Amino acid sequence: MSILVVGSVAFDKIETPFGQTDRIVGGAASYIALSAANFHQPVNLVGVVGGDFPQAFIEKLQQRGVDTRGLEIRTHEKSFFWHGRYHNDLNTRDTLETQLNVLETFDPQVPEAYRESEFLMLGNLMPDLQRSVIGQMKKRPKLIVMDTMNFWMDIAMDSVKQTIAQVDVLTINDEEARQLSGEYSLVKAARLIMKMGPRFVIIKKGEHGALLFHSDQVFYAPALPLEEVYDPTGAGDTFAGGFLGYLASTSDISFANMKNAIIYGSTMASFCVERFGTERLESLTLADIRGRYQAFLDLVQIEMQLV
Amino acid sequence: MSILVVGSVAFDKIETPFGQTDRIVGGAASYIALSAANFHQPVNLVGVVGGDFPQAFIEKLQQRGVDTRGLEIRTHEKSFFWHGRYHNDLNTRDTLETQLNVLETFDPQVPEAYRESEFLMLGNLMPDLQRSVIGQMKKRPKLIVMDTMNFWMDIAMDSVKQTIAQVDVLTINDEEARQLSGEYSLVKAARLIMKMGPRFVIIKKGEHGALLFHSDQVFYAPALPLEEVYDPTGAGDTFAGGFLGYLASTSDISFANMKNAIIYGSTMASFCVERFGTERLESLTLADIRGRYQAFLDLVQIEMQLV
Repeated sequence: MSILVVGSVAFDKIETPFGQTDRIVGGAASYIALSAANFHQPVNLVGVVGGDFPQAFIEKLQQRGVDTRGLEIRTHEKSFFWHGRYHNDLNTRDTLETQLNVLETFDPQVPEAYRESEFLMLGNLMPDLQRSVIGQMKKRPKLIVMDTMNFWMDIAMDSVKQTIAQVDVLTINDEEARQLSGEYSLVKAARLIMKMGPRFVIIKKGEHGALLFHSDQVFYAPALPLEEVYDPTGAGDTFAGGFLGYLASTSDISFANMKNAIIYGSTMASFCVERFGTERLESLTLADIRGRYQAFLDLVQIEMQLV
Repeated sequence: MSILVVGSVAFDKIETPFGQTDRIVGGAASYIALSAANFHQPVNLVGVVGGDFPQAFIEKLQQRGVDTRGLEIRTHEKSFFWHGRYHNDLNTRDTLETQLNVLETFDPQVPEAYRESEFLMLGNLMPDLQRSVIGQMKKRPKLIVMDTMNFWMDIAMDSVKQTIAQVDVLTINDEEARQLSGEYSLVKAARLIMKMGPRFVIIKKGEHGALLFHSDQVFYAPALPLEEVYDPTGAGDTFAGGFLGYLASTSDISFANMKNAIIYGSTMASFCVERFGTERLESLTLADIRGRYQAFLDLVQIEMQLV
């Protein structure tokens, strides 16, 4: 089972109530790949960076099991840059600056060696580019997971819907699910989104956990109540990486197995937010992950007692 | 095991995005008693109403297993009245009108027959009155559960804290937990509140479920994702009633059993919000409750799969 991840590899500058960073490494694909590689290797990566991007981080990705042959390096250009500030509740944020740079003309090229990957993760990116990647696959992947955001819905809703129609799983946050469906109730929103194509819809609710919908079934993964959340940046991508990595490692895409997959996704996200950027993800061990997964189970599991 | 509930029995006028009611029966103690009586009977009730209060509702309480000898009826006065309007997200509301009426001079008298009740629920009420009830008990109840709200913290924080110091379980919503503790993190907030007295703290997060804290342990009960939520009024009280009723029926106040108790509390709350006011609670059967409880378990239970 091979995994292919496409998405941004970039610089972020982050301000939270607990501190701020200089320019650090971020981007959807960085988080997804670092997270997924804990479960299954290699993780094939397609993305683009400029000549300003640190070689050391690329080597770190490789050490963690990421195949970076699909990471295009444009020596004379600059990497994508995002600068944002989180509000006190950490659930909302303002974008202070966005520099598209290399992303402006990004045209993802899937290397020959990646074109039979069975698990495809389309990280948040222009929806046209997401479809271009699907079109380059030699055969239809076993599972295509797509992430997107309100930004693309605002400026390219038709294209977003065209991509949604081609995927198996859509991951989306609660506000975006409401925007996409026009329904306030998340149950109704998920049902409408499934009619657009995906057999599975995952609605991410940040500190309130995540819901997995499939047909008329629903499963809920809580978020772990954490004492400190330093930086939510990348939590959704880290979640998606854990979800996909676990599925690829088991090669089982049943609803029953996806329940565990979103617990593993939540497990990974809970580590991500403990430090700024990708820092915590870079040193995780399988023992860390198993321990935290157990804590997630303990949080909700009970001995049934009928009245 | 006998249950004593003290709190308001009142009229509400409710506006939600889905409709509005005329003056209907409400009040914390109405919801708590109706909910608890599904699990254990009798539920002894202490409260006060005016001559305008419908005898038919008092009879309904009795039919559902509530002992109303402690419900004072002041024939020449009027019942407490609250008029509120919920915002579109149903998580926030504005109070449009409050008439204290009989509550203004309420001085709860616990009938002799109730004074050895082993499970005491102090519904949201002036904190002085909550302590007065504790003082009237012949022996210290096995478990005292207290609910309160921001209104009392704003005008009588010292008294709120004096009552909190005397109880075993505090139920409180997330914003109120932050106000009471001065901590944004709910984990930190719960820890500080436990230092104020209660061995158990339940933080209610509305549509995002509830957290149970005890010592260094935490348990999470999700809310069921519902297609329609008509009216959140009384959901927290209904939750508390289910929690207490289940505990009284089992006479087991261990942390392990409280996990089930908050699932039963959540189960009851999920019914409450499906109709305006107490309507849905008035016709519930044990079979309804068992089926919904099973749905709660299905929502989060998984077969553990270690990576």
